[in-house]
Amino acid sequence: VETVEALGKFLPDVDRPNEGVFAWQDEDEKWLALRYDLTAPLARVYAQHRNDLPTPYRRYAMGPVWRNEKPGPGRFRQFYQCDADTVGTSSMAADAEMCMMLADALEEVGIKRGDYTIRVSSRKLLEGLLNGLNDSEHDPRPISAPQREIVFRSVDKLDKIGIEGVRELLGKGRRDASGDYTVGADLSEWQCDRVVGLLDHTKTVSDVIAHILEAQNNDDQVDKDYLQKLVETQSFISGHPLLDNPVVNRLRLNELHLAALKALAEIAPEMNEGISELEQITEICAAQGYGPDRIVIDPSVVRGLGYYTGPVFEAELTFEITDEKGRPRQFGSVAGGGRYDDLVARFTGQKVPAVGVSIGVDRLLAALHAKGRAGGEAQGPVVVTVMDRARMAEYQAMVGDLRRAGIRAEVYLGNPKNFGNQMKYADRRGSPVAIIAGEDEFKREVVQVKDLILGAQIAQNATLEEWKDRPSQYEVSRDALVDKVRAILAGQA
Amino acid sequence: VETVEALGKFLPDVDRPNEGVFAWQDEDEKWLALRYDLTAPLARVYAQHRNDLPTPYRRYAMGPVWRNEKPGPGRFRQFYQCDADTVGTSSMAADAEMCMMLADALEEVGIKRGDYTIRVSSRKLLEGLLNGLNDSEHDPRPISAPQREIVFRSVDKLDKIGIEGVRELLGKGRRDASGDYTVGADLSEWQCDRVVGLLDHTKTVSDVIAHILEAQNNDDQVDKDYLQKLVETQSFISGHPLLDNPVVNRLRLNELHLAALKALAEIAPEMNEGISELEQITEICAAQGYGPDRIVIDPSVVRGLGYYTGPVFEAELTFEITDEKGRPRQFGSVAGGGRYDDLVARFTGQKVPAVGVSIGVDRLLAALHAKGRAGGEAQGPVVVTVMDRARMAEYQAMVGDLRRAGIRAEVYLGNPKNFGNQMKYADRRGSPVAIIAGEDEFKREVVQVKDLILGAQIAQNATLEEWKDRPSQYEVSRDALVDKVRAILAGQA
Repeated sequence: VETVEALGKFLPDVDRPNEGVFAWQDEDEKWLALRYDLTAPLARVYAQHRNDLPTPYRRYAMGPVWRNEKPGPGRFRQFYQCDADTVGTSSMAADAEMCMMLADALEEVGIKRGDYTIRVSSRKLLEGLLNGLNDSEHDPRPISAPQREIVFRSVDKLDKIGIEGVRELLGKGRRDASGDYTVGADLSEWQCDRVVGLLDHTKTVSDVIAHILEAQNNDDQVDKDYLQKLVETQSFISGHPLLDNPVVNRLRLNELHLAALKALAEIAPEMNEGISELEQITEICAAQGYGPDRIVIDPSVVRGLGYYTGPVFEAELTFEITDEKGRPRQFGSVAGGGRYDDLVARFTGQKVPAVGVSIGVDRLLAALHAKGRAGGEAQGPVVVTVMDRARMAEYQAMVGDLRRAGIRAEVYLGNPKNFGNQMKYADRRGSPVAIIAGEDEFKREVVQVKDLILGAQIAQNATLEEWKDRPSQYEVSRDALVDKVRAILAGQA
Repeated sequence: VETVEALGKFLPDVDRPNEGVFAWQDEDEKWLALRYDLTAPLARVYAQHRNDLPTPYRRYAMGPVWRNEKPGPGRFRQFYQCDADTVGTSSMAADAEMCMMLADALEEVGIKRGDYTIRVSSRKLLEGLLNGLNDSEHDPRPISAPQREIVFRSVDKLDKIGIEGVRELLGKGRRDASGDYTVGADLSEWQCDRVVGLLDHTKTVSDVIAHILEAQNNDDQVDKDYLQKLVETQSFISGHPLLDNPVVNRLRLNELHLAALKALAEIAPEMNEGISELEQITEICAAQGYGPDRIVIDPSVVRGLGYYTGPVFEAELTFEITDEKGRPRQFGSVAGGGRYDDLVARFTGQKVPAVGVSIGVDRLLAALHAKGRAGGEAQGPVVVTVMDRARMAEYQAMVGDLRRAGIRAEVYLGNPKNFGNQMKYADRRGSPVAIIAGEDEFKREVVQVKDLILGAQIAQNATLEEWKDRPSQYEVSRDALVDKVRAILAGQA
């Protein structure tokens, strides 16, 4: 819970106060709200405790966040984020580290290399382009702040509405399939062309690379005419020497992107700051072995949240899944982040540079499920079954012995009357071993130790007698209980 | 976030709807609220997923909870709880396990045995006593449900307002120091005496044990007259054979409590169910070696939350701390729990027995701080300092080497101009080792490896030259960097 002021108004598509967040008034009439992400609260915490924190301050955090939006498939009002941030440094090494860490984190949880891409851009590209777009011939007015906001929001919707939809929103406006009309940024035709050019750029560079790679794979010649056709609407890319170089490959993709951006910057020199950021980030990443097969420049990334000021990044899963309507589609984004140099200043008045990344835990988990890489249930506890309710203390002593030996164990605490239920419970818990001891066993000072992994296939409906008959069951003296269980767990029974 | 209906009205001292919780209406006018504990949401989750969960269902959970109350010293509107619960069993073995686990958990985090007590009671004691208190001579009306509620709330305040305060609240009512008047349960004088008798009981039994122990320690005779005087207002205790037994000791405390309760139950036989619960719990605990030096019967425990139905327990820290006004006082309760057999039934209509425990994480942490047993900062990362900004890729390669060897490491990401700031940063992070490499080192393909634990005492204001001179600093070849750091971390430099 934060005060509404501390959270600020940085959510995408939010015009009304408190829209998008769950908010209420406390008894002093002060507005409180549930955090909508972990970044805004970090800025508040850092501002509050900055004198006691090391600089730079690096932290990670995990927990639920809330958005007051219409829930839908895969779209929850409460979801989990896992964040990492570095506060107090403007070094691009910090931004590069975030991208590399994101790649490592995805691989660590089971997303294979090649199944994800970290797309990197800088808001300063689009910002710089807009600064340079003084269309003195057709419309000499500079692009206003509200216009800019609409431009960023429109570009952020590229994945959903496509390049033609974005172009409509950059111009007069757009009516969507449901008939709703959204007012556009009202850029001139000439300005729209330039912004769309920045977005087209990515596709062109990717298509060029794809063609060259395909030619290489087939021991074929690069089709210069085809390449020429690809880039003809993008004159800034056509002269680049990489296009003439037959050894060009995917690992030089970022180089080609940077060259194309530099050509584009000739009409909008204010883009150069953003280009320099991307150059530094991709160089640092490349020096650590994180090439464009993992971390790739993509100027169409702008991120929805309003607080980003420089580099922005997004982790996209590139494999196909089947959506709720049975259609194949790319899984899409599971994490994102960027630099937010002005967020802490809202509390301190003093500019404090910061950069961070946020993983959508629920979405990542859904992706792992879709790829069959989640689940993998942890091994359950050893279950000491109860044959004789009056012997509870003795069953618990067995549990005590096992626990003291560092082995997870528990007594069956449900109603012990139906022994089958006890075995079903052990099965459901994923128990590797069950212990069985009734009157006869106590008399002879022995226990039955049942290897449930071996015996799993008949777990469902066996009687006690059948269980006792199984070769995966061992009778050992009570004193040998712990050693026998340990041997079974080690696979040496 | 839960619906208000799912949370129910179980908070202590809550009369108005939504009082005590943070609640608001969503767009469909439905009331939502922040959870005030982790138990009510568990009941909802279990009801919702019970067909997919094993029975019994055992779970633990940790996270923030919220209470809409006036904040005060050590009393927050948001605080952390750590819960464990077993749903689907009415076996007292589950309740006993909760008590034993609570003891283990406290010792595990650093609370020494003897510094805490797990006090156990059952609501059925007071419930049964109230059922038996038909004061046919003075007031033949049975004690009503609202009266009962006031009785439980009053007894729960024993620690704060003392036995005389409770007696007032059992009768007509009580005016507190601030002048506020609280209406009482309106029990008759005779009924008040019986309820206070149950509370006095604990003190008497404890005083008796204390006297016997003291006599034993001093090789002295037990003073039968003194004991007689102690118990004369508590006739139910006076005839117990333990009082005549010179080997009585603290380890038989629960036995004496049970005997006293049984004597009291002669006037209120409906207490017997609660007594039987306590007998089973303390027997199971004792069989595992958890005697009354850790888990002790205390009938004055009732717990504030309204959903408990049977056994209730409370973990109290018995050492003294100094409060905010500098006065010594016992630290008090850090955890509590009990059986809530009716909570799941609110969703399913079907009774599902359950028992759980909740640790107040903030309070426990405060206790550990008070005892100087918290802190113990984790060792920080190896810090690779930056002497030459242009060499960033090489510094990061060092970090990469260290990380691949399983050693936490990072490049200093702040402004590298002031080297002292880099060393202060390493100090603040608790770094065991700093790596230093400038132009000279790169030329000779070596690095300086600085043992910061050895060198900690001069960390604050040293110059680079002083640092280089220290005997705790080693020059090694770049290739030997990882081995040297590993040796320092292992204390074998």
